[in-house]
Amino acid sequence: MSFNTFGTLFRVTTFGESHGPALGCVVDGCPPKIPLEAAEIQERLDRRRPGQSRFTTQRREPDEVKILSGVFADPDTGRQVTTGTPIALLIENTDQRSKDYSAIQDTYRPGHADFTYDAKYGLRDYRGGGRSSARETAARVAAGAIARKIVPGLMVRAALVKVGRHEIDRRNWDWDEIDRNPLFCPDAEAARVFADYLDDVRKSGSSIGAIVEVVAEGVPAGLGAPVYGKLDADLASALMGINAVKGVEIGAGFASAELSGEENADEMRLGNDGAPRFLTNHAGGVLGGISTGQPLVCRFAVKPTSSILTPRATVNRWGEETEILTKGRHDPCVGIRAVPVAEAMVACVVADHYLRQRGQVGDTPAWPFVRPAAPAEEIPAAHTKARE
Amino acid sequence: MSFNTFGTLFRVTTFGESHGPALGCVVDGCPPKIPLEAAEIQERLDRRRPGQSRFTTQRREPDEVKILSGVFADPDTGRQVTTGTPIALLIENTDQRSKDYSAIQDTYRPGHADFTYDAKYGLRDYRGGGRSSARETAARVAAGAIARKIVPGLMVRAALVKVGRHEIDRRNWDWDEIDRNPLFCPDAEAARVFADYLDDVRKSGSSIGAIVEVVAEGVPAGLGAPVYGKLDADLASALMGINAVKGVEIGAGFASAELSGEENADEMRLGNDGAPRFLTNHAGGVLGGISTGQPLVCRFAVKPTSSILTPRATVNRWGEETEILTKGRHDPCVGIRAVPVAEAMVACVVADHYLRQRGQVGDTPAWPFVRPAAPAEEIPAAHTKARE
Amino acid sequence: MSFNTFGTLFRVTTFGESHGPALGCVVDGCPPKIPLEAAEIQERLDRRRPGQSRFTTQRREPDEVKILSGVFADPDTGRQVTTGTPIALLIENTDQRSKDYSAIQDTYRPGHADFTYDAKYGLRDYRGGGRSSARETAARVAAGAIARKIVPGLMVRAALVKVGRHEIDRRNWDWDEIDRNPLFCPDAEAARVFADYLDDVRKSGSSIGAIVEVVAEGVPAGLGAPVYGKLDADLASALMGINAVKGVEIGAGFASAELSGEENADEMRLGNDGAPRFLTNHAGGVLGGISTGQPLVCRFAVKPTSSILTPRATVNRWGEETEILTKGRHDPCVGIRAVPVAEAMVACVVADHYLRQRGQVGDTPAWPFVRPAAPAEEIPAAHTKARE
Amino acid sequence: MSFNTFGTLFRVTTFGESHGPALGCVVDGCPPKIPLEAAEIQERLDRRRPGQSRFTTQRREPDEVKILSGVFADPDTGRQVTTGTPIALLIENTDQRSKDYSAIQDTYRPGHADFTYDAKYGLRDYRGGGRSSARETAARVAAGAIARKIVPGLMVRAALVKVGRHEIDRRNWDWDEIDRNPLFCPDAEAARVFADYLDDVRKSGSSIGAIVEVVAEGVPAGLGAPVYGKLDADLASALMGINAVKGVEIGAGFASAELSGEENADEMRLGNDGAPRFLTNHAGGVLGGISTGQPLVCRFAVKPTSSILTPRATVNRWGEETEILTKGRHDPCVGIRAVPVAEAMVACVVADHYLRQRGQVGDTPAWPFVRPAAPAEEIPAAHTKARE
Repeated sequence: MSFNTFGTLFRVTTFGESHGPALGCVVDGCPPKIPLEAAEIQERLDRRRPGQSRFTTQRREPDEVKILSGVFADPDTGRQVTTGTPIALLIENTDQRSKDYSAIQDTYRPGHADFTYDAKYGLRDYRGGGRSSARETAARVAAGAIARKIVPGLMVRAALVKVGRHEIDRRNWDWDEIDRNPLFCPDAEAARVFADYLDDVRKSGSSIGAIVEVVAEGVPAGLGAPVYGKLDADLASALMGINAVKGVEIGAGFASAELSGEENADEMRLGNDGAPRFLTNHAGGVLGGISTGQPLVCRFAVKPTSSILTPRATVNRWGEETEILTKGRHDPCVGIRAVPVAEAMVACVVADHYLRQRGQVGDTPAWPFVRPAAPAEEIPAAHTKARE
Repeated sequence: MSFNTFGTLFRVTTFGESHGPALGCVVDGCPPKIPLEAAEIQERLDRRRPGQSRFTTQRREPDEVKILSGVFADPDTGRQVTTGTPIALLIENTDQRSKDYSAIQDTYRPGHADFTYDAKYGLRDYRGGGRSSARETAARVAAGAIARKIVPGLMVRAALVKVGRHEIDRRNWDWDEIDRNPLFCPDAEAARVFADYLDDVRKSGSSIGAIVEVVAEGVPAGLGAPVYGKLDADLASALMGINAVKGVEIGAGFASAELSGEENADEMRLGNDGAPRFLTNHAGGVLGGISTGQPLVCRFAVKPTSSILTPRATVNRWGEETEILTKGRHDPCVGIRAVPVAEAMVACVVADHYLRQRGQVGDTPAWPFVRPAAPAEEIPAAHTKARE
Repeated sequence: MSFNTFGTLFRVTTFGESHGPALGCVVDGCPPKIPLEAAEIQERLDRRRPGQSRFTTQRREPDEVKILSGVFADPDTGRQVTTGTPIALLIENTDQRSKDYSAIQDTYRPGHADFTYDAKYGLRDYRGGGRSSARETAARVAAGAIARKIVPGLMVRAALVKVGRHEIDRRNWDWDEIDRNPLFCPDAEAARVFADYLDDVRKSGSSIGAIVEVVAEGVPAGLGAPVYGKLDADLASALMGINAVKGVEIGAGFASAELSGEENADEMRLGNDGAPRFLTNHAGGVLGGISTGQPLVCRFAVKPTSSILTPRATVNRWGEETEILTKGRHDPCVGIRAVPVAEAMVACVVADHYLRQRGQVGDTPAWPFVRPAAPAEEIPAAHTKARE
Repeated sequence: MSFNTFGTLFRVTTFGESHGPALGCVVDGCPPKIPLEAAEIQERLDRRRPGQSRFTTQRREPDEVKILSGVFADPDTGRQVTTGTPIALLIENTDQRSKDYSAIQDTYRPGHADFTYDAKYGLRDYRGGGRSSARETAARVAAGAIARKIVPGLMVRAALVKVGRHEIDRRNWDWDEIDRNPLFCPDAEAARVFADYLDDVRKSGSSIGAIVEVVAEGVPAGLGAPVYGKLDADLASALMGINAVKGVEIGAGFASAELSGEENADEMRLGNDGAPRFLTNHAGGVLGGISTGQPLVCRFAVKPTSSILTPRATVNRWGEETEILTKGRHDPCVGIRAVPVAEAMVACVVADHYLRQRGQVGDTPAWPFVRPAAPAEEIPAAHTKARE
């Protein structure tokens, strides 16, 4: 996790600017013989693609992915599989309108990375945000589509749980609902409230923050490495590194501050299969930086889109005071598009740690009883109560 | 940040178990010619050392640090300085009471890493928590004492801002107060409230969570590397990797979810020195993963100590249901001791990124106006309002 | 230097198979504001491109490079420069003849990586050698073209100095000669001998090994990091990692085994500029893993091309004994094409260490007298004598 | 392999100067449940320890190793085993004579790293060579003792094969001879010749270079990662990084330059066990950067000790010309002590790649027939002929 490369054994290097010729990634360290078609990756990209509803930017990109390397016909089955060598994925930028950038070329948009890129590098590709554009996350989603296939039984899903002051009702949580509304909201009723609210926000030229929750099921116990490669530390890094994210929590998260030791301890019993079963999941699936076999539960906060129609005070690169108003195609709530990106990042982290654990300890589970446990029913309730 | 090594250019590798012969770290990549005495490191360690008040574990360790390598007399000044080679720091464990561990040897304490270490490795050093003990953080504090000296003008301070449902009043914030009470609390009045509350918690054999805030001033603009080495992603990883931490936020953090684009944008003006000045700091000093020159402001949640005097249901390593009650020396609120550890981790992250930026871009600031700005007065107020 | 990524701060990740859609690389960590045009990279690629003489494979690829990211117009000069973000380079494969691969698909060519790729991954892209093809080195040459521009005053050149039992006469060494013959040979007379000899080898369907020498001038003293990131260790890794290389030496190299301490010591005097001057360069520019300021001098041995027209005994993937004869387009001496690749690899190593040194120690040279010294005239003679 | 840390999954970080309080290492990523006693490590250290014969420096250090962390009693067997957490090893320096260093304090000994450390860092610990002392290799030997235990069936042995112009006769090669003479020489007759020759060298206050050969048997096929983590590239780096090494070769090595494709190809047949068998091993056990299952065969050249009794011209740190003569305890041939160090480095490389392969591909061998093959009888003969 340094520079533009992510991971230790499952390694993803992304490249590309919003309005350059192309963006993409190189996925290195993928196990061989995993069936992989461009269509599967495309399916994941399509979920993230903007312009699909009135709530995401109207930039229309087909975001068509090509696999440039690292796959070949399995000699035994004839199916296209990974070969173990680097998988390069390419997404060409096609909607590069020849736009007038004179307004933002030399003036720093508050909340954007304009100023910091200039401060760091002395220049920046200002077209569409350049490297700091959310467009880079398409490469992450593509890499995540591969990561998902590495850990047997892994299922990573995310959902929008809060927009502004509007929250879902956890009793209505239905994963099937996620793909039925354009907001990835697991509560059908809340989805309608969110949508109405976002319409108002959008019409007023404003924007609003959000909270997304990611749940990874099927994560075996034992993943994570003390003390600087803890699973939760890597999840925090992966999620905080998504554009516009300002906070990350795991399990009970910030609500832990108000819990007593008695409330917080996830008691253990044995399941019918003889494997340990946690009665609650305040830990969010991680203890001491190592997975417990319970679902990983993370939440993260996304700040409001910085591009708004109200002028804001700022300075330009010549050191003059001025103000700026950002026109153009923008999402009223970037939290929506963060949903598939978060799934991808969590899948990459889990895949990397899965391979690392296999490297250090081997295929045989260290402790015979340890298997991914079924989700504890009590989790959401416990959280909700704690947070109130 | 992988396994037990942290950092890219400023690299810290820690080792040691709670009750083994010693613990310590190797600090690699430190610039040469930095004056360094064991006494300076000792001073930082003494702030973290347990047993100094009734609120931290009564284990009494002198925690005396020795420098084993990497320092030598400067040929010009005669002062002891770093040589650029690895600095090994050693802290011997002296309070290794020959205790009876039969109760926890084979039984998993809920909330502790007992189960996960066994699940990962097939065994664990159960004495005092072994590698997962908070004792490991002594090595981090030692490394942080070196990191602080690398970035000219850097000042990193942390404070306890919430315990259970009790919060500080930000209008009373006084950094000088931090070292006047045993809780690292910046609000003298809140310190008294916290202390009374913690006395109750301690006497009832219970424990409680907390929130800590870290502020790093003097961080030049331009530190951080897109897109997987973002400064905030590395801070999140560093803080989430501290024992018992369940959530991390930067700037407005989770409160961003309720902010509009207008509220969240940190507008910019020019300061008297001609450098950009942000009117607020909802960003917490980071935009697009790169430092703005404003203070870095992070907050993290610490769960309640898992060791409590109430019996909890659990299982043992033979797959039997049982229950456990944890006696012994324990902190009612581990958030207190997390304060100096958090300072150290933030210092290490900033030092590493400082060297990385110097490596890629050189000593000359890329943008002439960019200098660390003075803290914006409006920050705490903005946060507080947003969070209500 | 792990998997398909090379370097710590100047990082190169390559991808692509010989007969896949494309190959290329992502160069991460490049300093910003370095002028860079595709044409410069193309020029380097053209030197390596096969099919330019009867001594290299007749595969005809234009090897046209495209820059996909990481460059932009400098706001001050208007020139295209690096931005500090990842530079992705793409070379599409155009000469992918639909060839019959049934002969090698399941049978292991001795000396090739066929067997080992199958042993490692369970399958391989057998078309043209797949990932193990020398074609991958095009991406390295492209990355090297960028690396060369990072260190001010750096000049890296390589030459073919031995083919079979035929060696150059070091008294005839003329760097200008390198680009006048198709063999990168610095001795015009030897070039003719090599050419005649290689004609015979080629006509007989055989192949032969070679030795290449690389010299890097303008390397400042102080680059290299004890003890596992030594400059010479990284050079050894970089050169040994080139296809078909079986040995690497620095300075006097293997001849050191026969030298006495008196012969081997490079004595020091002061040059006219007051900087230290070494009277000889048996060290090859590296002492204790750190550059001396003298030219880096490396030599490496390349084995003969494994594809020959004589049948060899082998086995197939079903565990049957058989024999194989490799038809097709092949170089009689792969050492020739290794010349520009070696230059690129050395440039990448030097650039990476240059940035690392700047990161750890800063721009100011640690020791005021230390500047790259002029090449010592005595070097080649000393070597030659030692090796006789 | 960067800075003072070596390896990707099996990671070794060393620290310490020759005359500081202590040196040692942290071994991270070691699999759990491997039986490990300090005595086993001590046995390896004792082989390397100087002062055991008249051919190595008379510095007498007990070099007693202590294990500070990472081991614990196996709950099932009661034996001390690794726990999977960092193993810190400490060797205290006891023979730190209070010596007069005024002669070398400010003057650069030719051939030593004195000048380059000053050039890099601006200062150095000059006592006994500081960090650049061969004493650092004790930590590597200690780490290697652990690495050897990771790969089942691995046996790594090294031998001194050439001193000055004196070479062994490969027909006399007897591994049992290695530990019968103080030179690690596998040819009893050559050992006597070497000893007599070294007596002369020592008495004349001179020194001489040497060649060491390392052979690793029991290395499974499939280890190594294209294209910058090739097994041979990592071996080259590991061996070139040993003090005083100036050249590394694998298999036929530099002799490959004179071989034809027909001579060089290692033909394959099936062994009695149905596994592939190579008829020769010019490849030295590596094809395309991946192990073949044959023994790894590496050779490296060690330059003569730079400390000699003849005065040499040099400069000092004030930029003055002077001369220097190095008195004190020194080896006439540092190649001798490089033998156990080389074994350790090769063991570390193989262990790291073994874990990496298990991580990426899993425990199941990718290709059912692939098992470590018996050494091919023809290897040494083939080499010898080729090198003549």
